[in-house]
Amino acid sequence: MRFLIPLISSSITSGHYRIISRLLSAHLTKPQRSALPPFFNCQPPSMAASEESLRKALAEKQSAVEAHGNAVRALKAAKASKPEIDAAIEALNSLKLEKSSIEKQLQAAVSGSDGDGALSREAFRQAAVNTLERRLFYIPSFKIYRGVAGLYDYGPPGCAVKSNVLAFWRQHFVLEENMLEVDCPCVTPEVVLKASGHVDKFTDLMVKDEKTGTCYRADHLLKDFCNEKLQKDLTISAEKAAELKHVLATLDDLSAEALGAKIKEYGITAPDTKNPLSDPYPFNLMFQTSIGPSGLSPGYMRPETAQGIFVNFKDLYYYNGNKLPFAAAQIGQAFRNEISPRQGLLRVREFTLAEIEHFVDPEDKSHPKYSEVVDLEFLMFPREEQMSGQSAKKIRLGDAVSKGTVNNETLGYFIGRVYLFLTRLGIDKDRLRFRQHLANEMAHYAADCWDAEIECSYGWIECVGIADRSAYDLRAHSEHHVKNVFDEGQREGNIDFIGTNLDKSGVPLVAAEKFSEPREVEKLVIAPVKKELGLAFKGSQKNVVEALEAMNEKEALEMKAALESKGEVEFYVCTLGKNVPIKKNMVSISKEKKKEHQRVFTPSVIEPSFGIGRIIYCLFEHSFYTRPSKAGDEQLNVFRFPPLVAPIKCTVFPLVQNQQYEDVAKVISKSLTTAGISHKIDITGTSIGKRYARTDELGVPFAITVDSTKDVTIRERDSKLQVRVSVEEAALVVKSVTDGLRTWEDVWEKYPHHTSGSADD
Amino acid sequence: MRFLIPLISSSITSGHYRIISRLLSAHLTKPQRSALPPFFNCQPPSMAASEESLRKALAEKQSAVEAHGNAVRALKAAKASKPEIDAAIEALNSLKLEKSSIEKQLQAAVSGSDGDGALSREAFRQAAVNTLERRLFYIPSFKIYRGVAGLYDYGPPGCAVKSNVLAFWRQHFVLEENMLEVDCPCVTPEVVLKASGHVDKFTDLMVKDEKTGTCYRADHLLKDFCNEKLQKDLTISAEKAAELKHVLATLDDLSAEALGAKIKEYGITAPDTKNPLSDPYPFNLMFQTSIGPSGLSPGYMRPETAQGIFVNFKDLYYYNGNKLPFAAAQIGQAFRNEISPRQGLLRVREFTLAEIEHFVDPEDKSHPKYSEVVDLEFLMFPREEQMSGQSAKKIRLGDAVSKGTVNNETLGYFIGRVYLFLTRLGIDKDRLRFRQHLANEMAHYAADCWDAEIECSYGWIECVGIADRSAYDLRAHSEHHVKNVFDEGQREGNIDFIGTNLDKSGVPLVAAEKFSEPREVEKLVIAPVKKELGLAFKGSQKNVVEALEAMNEKEALEMKAALESKGEVEFYVCTLGKNVPIKKNMVSISKEKKKEHQRVFTPSVIEPSFGIGRIIYCLFEHSFYTRPSKAGDEQLNVFRFPPLVAPIKCTVFPLVQNQQYEDVAKVISKSLTTAGISHKIDITGTSIGKRYARTDELGVPFAITVDSTKDVTIRERDSKLQVRVSVEEAALVVKSVTDGLRTWEDVWEKYPHHTSGSADD
Repeated sequence: MRFLIPLISSSITSGHYRIISRLLSAHLTKPQRSALPPFFNCQPPSMAASEESLRKALAEKQSAVEAHGNAVRALKAAKASKPEIDAAIEALNSLKLEKSSIEKQLQAAVSGSDGDGALSREAFRQAAVNTLERRLFYIPSFKIYRGVAGLYDYGPPGCAVKSNVLAFWRQHFVLEENMLEVDCPCVTPEVVLKASGHVDKFTDLMVKDEKTGTCYRADHLLKDFCNEKLQKDLTISAEKAAELKHVLATLDDLSAEALGAKIKEYGITAPDTKNPLSDPYPFNLMFQTSIGPSGLSPGYMRPETAQGIFVNFKDLYYYNGNKLPFAAAQIGQAFRNEISPRQGLLRVREFTLAEIEHFVDPEDKSHPKYSEVVDLEFLMFPREEQMSGQSAKKIRLGDAVSKGTVNNETLGYFIGRVYLFLTRLGIDKDRLRFRQHLANEMAHYAADCWDAEIECSYGWIECVGIADRSAYDLRAHSEHHVKNVFDEGQREGNIDFIGTNLDKSGVPLVAAEKFSEPREVEKLVIAPVKKELGLAFKGSQKNVVEALEAMNEKEALEMKAALESKGEVEFYVCTLGKNVPIKKNMVSISKEKKKEHQRVFTPSVIEPSFGIGRIIYCLFEHSFYTRPSKAGDEQLNVFRFPPLVAPIKCTVFPLVQNQQYEDVAKVISKSLTTAGISHKIDITGTSIGKRYARTDELGVPFAITVDSTKDVTIRERDSKLQVRVSVEEAALVVKSVTDGLRTWEDVWEKYPHHTSGSADD
Repeated sequence: MRFLIPLISSSITSGHYRIISRLLSAHLTKPQRSALPPFFNCQPPSMAASEESLRKALAEKQSAVEAHGNAVRALKAAKASKPEIDAAIEALNSLKLEKSSIEKQLQAAVSGSDGDGALSREAFRQAAVNTLERRLFYIPSFKIYRGVAGLYDYGPPGCAVKSNVLAFWRQHFVLEENMLEVDCPCVTPEVVLKASGHVDKFTDLMVKDEKTGTCYRADHLLKDFCNEKLQKDLTISAEKAAELKHVLATLDDLSAEALGAKIKEYGITAPDTKNPLSDPYPFNLMFQTSIGPSGLSPGYMRPETAQGIFVNFKDLYYYNGNKLPFAAAQIGQAFRNEISPRQGLLRVREFTLAEIEHFVDPEDKSHPKYSEVVDLEFLMFPREEQMSGQSAKKIRLGDAVSKGTVNNETLGYFIGRVYLFLTRLGIDKDRLRFRQHLANEMAHYAADCWDAEIECSYGWIECVGIADRSAYDLRAHSEHHVKNVFDEGQREGNIDFIGTNLDKSGVPLVAAEKFSEPREVEKLVIAPVKKELGLAFKGSQKNVVEALEAMNEKEALEMKAALESKGEVEFYVCTLGKNVPIKKNMVSISKEKKKEHQRVFTPSVIEPSFGIGRIIYCLFEHSFYTRPSKAGDEQLNVFRFPPLVAPIKCTVFPLVQNQQYEDVAKVISKSLTTAGISHKIDITGTSIGKRYARTDELGVPFAITVDSTKDVTIRERDSKLQVRVSVEEAALVVKSVTDGLRTWEDVWEKYPHHTSGSADD
């Protein structure tokens, strides 16, 4: 345990940029990463062959056009014969045609397989979003006050979909896996987010319009510039195109200085005003506030729910009978003060996260229920495939784990469970892929990370992150609260803090495996001689001591050997940023035998983290389609939600306005309520076709139409097929299908079909 | 519609103290109000007869003791005979005994019916809270960092209880009543909370320790001082006691100045240091933050969820087919930066609210389902009873409505539904009362308010507020956004605000009733003559115009008559705080006949607002009891949660560690999962009695013990009775009882009883 603190403190220090990357990437903050072309970090990306040759061909054709143009002008100036000039003009025109054809091909190449793809995606999104907003699935918040960017309300149907998604999440993960669910506050004191790294590192780089003060995300401006150039400016050279693609690929790794230099180099200005921009500087994305009346206790609205679980690890471990593995889960609001939110529900300032922290012995990452997912086969996009320019491919999960593509069984198990969760919600399995993080995307401590990405009109969107985060988070809090609560703790000793739990502080967040009988182990002991180090390094003594203690076994044994042979070695101290000379009398390194009764260790954390709003938005897009009305005069909107997520499961319509039918409708409504089926009665005199269309737009899977007092019809939304059932049975038939006890096909087989056109559109 | 703005602006101005009272009281912020003795505002409270006479008797006895003491000393000084002195001493002692007996009676009288009540309540709470914290029902948040006052986590069982309570709330209110549920963000721009009054008025009065800067709620210090004095200082006179009680009764109405004066008068100092205190000043209870990167858009964490519904009224009304009545509902987090939180889960800085806004035509507050609650009978505490010193009494809801005690049917309907909700959760109906707000507690615009108060160890706690808030909230936003968005709107025109919804601004939040044929109506028209008013009142012209336009029909007709007879009247302008002379040429008041095709009106809002955390805490206390272990050597803790809210419905125990039994347990577990019953297997070798005790502490209603491979026992938690059922039936039996399809008594009747002592403690 003695090595814990220096170990972590030095790895935090040396791993700054990686922490940034973890904070900004593992938690769904960078959709642009989804748009990242599959090229590895620091290599100049090779361009797709066709695009490169097209750019070259276009440049050649352009030169030919210019040369021919000059020739035509020369002929004219030289007063050549008309047939001669005409022939030259014809040749020029045919060259121009050829050039235009290459332009078209290039346009198609840069905007994907289909030149009209971007346009039709845009039109599709517009149709879906119009329906969603008109039917109040969601609404810009505080709209009567002109709204606030990045804040959305869920209206009645959206709210019902969300609550169904969360209920299924709870069923599928918390209940079926016996997870420990907790519910922690959003308001979080600074000390917690200091430990997690968010206070220092949870930033985006921002630039300001130098005249109006309007703020922009620096990387977004650069990204937009590159994309625009690549897609619309067909005259740029193949080399320039390669450079721009390289910038896009390395966007996440650019420092403030490098980003600023690129913005200057490309002459990027403020999009609205064309004013010059400031240099980029970091803006912390947390909403800050102050806890209590004194103004002395800074706090933040949590940027993720995970920290609430980590700080409770000790209690939860105890609750679980001091046994590993176990998982804790939390559903709750998280907040990010985005610089300039866009992409609707995909990038918002407040959102619902559902997070699981599965704590496991780092030496045993097997999972007892792994066999239940081993045969699942779905689109995976491993690191190798991304780096070699291939695309995602169908892989059997068991193979991915056994070949080591997926780091371990538990990680594989959760990938499989996430796949089942998303597809059961109604996500199209052909537009769902699991993409492995590239080396430069992953935090240094992470063992492996996979994102569930869903394709929608905005591209591939990261909706769930599944990361093996090793022991990082628990260690960060162990270290920080030991350091802070004991060393600096008293400064926060005002009335806003509870003083009674001091006894708990300083308890490292670790687990223990008791041995059935004591074991003899050989332990490495690194004992810096502080007196000698103090004499040699004065004020830097502490840094050197920590760095020495932080060495791993291999490093320490190498140093031991070197000191024994040479008496002195150069040693890099990362917190000082330089080498220092270490002499033999400054440190003793030895291996000692000890009897141990238990093994104490920091558990690894495997973290599936779900962006609920993003999943719901993708679900909306995957469920949306249009079909012509019966008269063929308009396109009708439909959401093909499975009953599990449909906001309302059933509607009840009296065919015509009539007291008898209305009474039957009320009887059926009552039995639906008893059966727990959310439904709606519509007794307006509107035509039955219009009423069907209205509920199709809400994604209601079944409609019961009352056209007699004995039996009624049940219509299925997508097939528009209808069966006849008795009034008494109606609610139970709907319940059995919405509960998944039987399918619509079963119902269609069992009950008489209803074919009267009068009851449909 | 022309009158809308001035009407509201003047009533806001003249009703300041009432707005404060609404903001601080209607939304569960002042538990001390529950402790308010039942006296009306400005009358000196009459003291309970027994207490007053006891104080007098005590004072007399004290004088007698002093007089007799003097007499004894005089006898001694006069060297009287020993028998004489002894007799006098005996008399003195007997007087002292009598005095001590009166002291005890007085002590009992001031601390409630039972002198030991406070102590035993404290002990009960300690036992319950110990169990709750030990079993992780809830935990102080961020405990390893010494916690933050007023922030709590729900651990696994607490989280499950909360999610059951919310699911039942959704079932009981949203689904059964077809409410429109919405889900709005917590981050709220300033303009919304400016309109609602929270920015200006949502404050508590605070004092600071002048040396350490520690903050206290001024009214809490004064309240503690008065209570302490009344309960512990038996020497104070009856007059002084009456004065202190009067202070307690009027605490809510004291201005900063009056509160400061009392603190000075009583010499109250900082509780921890005894340092002097600053004068009281208002502290806004909202957590403030900043939206977007510019730092120019202030925002707050919402202090209630209701505003999100009000600003969406227009869309929701449209969604409901432009029909009234309808209700919208929201469950979500709310935030209040309490000055110094205490009372555990009852006063916290972040909490879950569940709010309903039922919009109704002010001219028709009937409710179609009113007949379903009309015969409910429960404890009600109307205004009259409180003012006349009586206690709450059982009243039939229908009678309370028909006699006008409850203002209208819809309000009555919701009171009934809240009663059903709380008692079905497991709240003891004898410790639940509906208390009507006194006149001084209610906002000026409110038609009627009732609080569901639940008695726990802290006294009677306001857990649900049910208020008829008339048209106040919708009008506040109609007025404010018209004024702000149009007059001052542009100042917020930066990138953080969505500019595309401007077309929606300025639409008043109103409903309309279309007439089947046009109606002729007589309308009052008040037309201030601005030119004349400007000449007469210069800069105050606007105030006078608004006040004139704000007159109701009666006032306007009186003024018309007065102007016609006298030519001039004195007119009080509340925004100027004085009378001004109005001449005949300054205003024209007339009645005009008009044809109207519809009636446009601002709907009334009936708002049941549930403090979920408070309800859960009271539920914990009402469910908690202890019983001796079988050996009689310890007290075992039990929560008698109904299956509806129990965190886990069932446990499965193999009686002894044995592979066969374990396999059976797993089979039963699987069928419980299929049946959707949350449960837990415990295969530890712990004695069955200990395992029962462990789950009794979590309030698990049923335990299935596997003691054979054919049939098993099911034990009910509170009766400890057991039946034998077959392995196949076990899950279904538990499901039928937890789903409420049959009772435990039904099961007890049907299945063979199990009586072996070995399977229980």
